[in-house]
Amino acid sequence: EDLTQSQFDTVYNLLSLVIASQLFTAVFLVLVLPRVLPRYRQALVIAAVVCGIAAYHYFRIFDSFKDAFVTDAVGGRGTYTQAEGASFNEGYRYVDWLLTVPLLLVELIAVLALARKVQTSLLWKLVPAATLMILLGYPGEISTSDNVRVLWGVLSTIPFIFILYVLFVELTKSLDRQPAQVRTLISRLRILLLASWLVYPIAYALPLLGISGADAWVLKQGGYSIADIAAKAVYALIIYRIARLKSYADD
Amino acid sequence: EDLTQSQFDTVYNLLSLVIASQLFTAVFLVLVLPRVLPRYRQALVIAAVVCGIAAYHYFRIFDSFKDAFVTDAVGGRGTYTQAEGASFNEGYRYVDWLLTVPLLLVELIAVLALARKVQTSLLWKLVPAATLMILLGYPGEISTSDNVRVLWGVLSTIPFIFILYVLFVELTKSLDRQPAQVRTLISRLRILLLASWLVYPIAYALPLLGISGADAWVLKQGGYSIADIAAKAVYALIIYRIARLKSYADD
Ligand SMILES: CC1=C(/C=C/C(C)=C/C=C/C(C)=C/C=O)C(C)(C)CCC1
Ligand SMILES: CC1=C(/C=C/C(C)=C/C=C/C(C)=C/C=O)C(C)(C)CCC1
Repeated sequence: EDLTQSQFDTVYNLLSLVIASQLFTAVFLVLVLPRVLPRYRQALVIAAVVCGIAAYHYFRIFDSFKDAFVTDAVGGRGTYTQAEGASFNEGYRYVDWLLTVPLLLVELIAVLALARKVQTSLLWKLVPAATLMILLGYPGEISTSDNVRVLWGVLSTIPFIFILYVLFVELTKSLDRQPAQVRTLISRLRILLLASWLVYPIAYALPLLGISGADAWVLKQGGYSIADIAAKAVYALIIYRIARLKSYADD
Repeated sequence: EDLTQSQFDTVYNLLSLVIASQLFTAVFLVLVLPRVLPRYRQALVIAAVVCGIAAYHYFRIFDSFKDAFVTDAVGGRGTYTQAEGASFNEGYRYVDWLLTVPLLLVELIAVLALARKVQTSLLWKLVPAATLMILLGYPGEISTSDNVRVLWGVLSTIPFIFILYVLFVELTKSLDRQPAQVRTLISRLRILLLASWLVYPIAYALPLLGISGADAWVLKQGGYSIADIAAKAVYALIIYRIARLKSYADD
C-alpha cells in the first residue's frame, strides 16, 4: 500500500510518541522507587522493565517504518511507496508481547502482595496462559490464508478468555483484605486492561472482516500505539498509585 | 524555503543548545533529589522527566533538520535546499507538548504540597485543559488553509485562557499558607510561564499575519528554542529553588 504524506506523518509521530511515553515512564518508575515500601518495589521494577522493553521495540519499529516507506518528493511532500528491499516488520510486536504480556500480569500480582500461596497459584495460571496466547496468535498473524488466521486466532482466544476469568473472577476472591481505595484502583486497572487488551484481537481480525487498505493500516498502527501506551505506561502509573497507597496503609 | 549557510548554522546551533540545556537540567535534577525533603521529590522527578522528554524530542528534531536541508557546496558553504524524500517534522513539537505541558502543571502543583483535596481539584482542571489545548491546536498546525488554522487556533485558546485563569486566580487563593519567600518565587514562576507560553500561540499565528519566508522560519525556530529552555529548564530550576526553600521552612 502507498501512504499519503499526512498518513506517513501520523504514523511517524505516533510511533515517536510511544517511544517517549514508554522510555520516560520507565525512567520515572526507577526514580520514584524509593518512594514506596521495599515490598512493593518488585512490582515497580517489573513495570519499568516492561516499559523499557516496549521502548526498545518501538525504536526498532520506528526505524523499520522509516526504511519501509520512502518518497522522492522534495521536502517529503508526496506519496510514500514501499521501498525495495525493506519490509515493515510487524513481528517486533509479537516478540515484544511474548516478553511483556506475562510480565504485565506478574506486575499486577506483585503489587497486591497477596499471601505467598495465592500468589504462586495465580502466577502459575496467568503466566503460561499469556505465553501460550501470544505463541498461538503468531502463526495466524504471518499467514496469508484466512482459514489459518481464523484457526490460530480461535486457539489463541482460549487462553485469553482464561486470563480474563482468572483476573475478574478468581482474583476478586483474594481482594477483600485490600484497603477500600486500593480496591477501587484495582477495578479501574482491570477495566483499563480489558479495554486496551481487546484492541489486539480486534486488530488481528481486521483482515478477516475485509478491512484493509492504507486507511485501515494507519488506523491499526494508531490503535496499537494508543493501546500500548494504555496497557503499559498508564497501567504502570496506576500500579505506582496502588503501591503508594499501600505503602501509606501499611506504615 | 532555502536557507543560507548562516541561517542553517543558527538553527543547527540553537537546536543543539536546547538538547544540552534540557539533558543536563534533567541530570542535575536527578542528582540534587536527595537535597530536598521526600515530599518535594515527586515534583523534581517530574521536572527531570519533562526535561528528558524534551531532550529526546530535540535529538529527533535535530536529526530531522539535518536530513531535511542539504547542500552540495564544498565545506557546506552554500545554500541549503530542501532534500528529496525528507521533511522537517514539526509534528515532534506537538507530540512533545502533549506529554510535557500537562506535566509542567503537575510539577508546579506538586511542589506546592497543598491540601490533598485542593491539589486534586486543581489537577482535574489543569491537566485535561492542557491536553485539550494541544490536541485542538494540532489540526490547525498541519492544515494549509488559513480558515482552518484560525478555527482550531481559537478553539485551542479557550482551554489556554482557562489554564491562565486557574493559575492566576484560583491558585492564588491557596497560597496564603506558603512562606513569603516562596510566594515571591511562585509569582516569578508564573510570569516566566506566561511569557514563555505566549511564544507558542504567537508562532502559530505568524502565517496568518502573512509573516513567512526563510527569515520568519528561522526566527520561529529560535523562538521555540528559547521558549522551550525557559518553559522547561529554567522553570525546573525555579521549582527546585522552591523545593529547597520549603524544605528549610518545614524542617
Ligand atoms: C486474543 C488474541 C490475541 C491477543 C493478544 C493480546 C491480548 C495482546 C496483548 C498485548 C499487550 C497487552 C501488549 C502490551 O502493551 C492475538 C495474539 C492478537 C491473536 C488473536 C487472538
Ligand atoms: C493557545 C494556542 C496554542 C498554545 C500552545 C502552548 C501554550 C504551548 C505550550 C508549550 C510549552 C509550554 C512547551 C514547553 O516547553 C497552540 C497549541 C500553539 C495552538 C494555538 C493556540
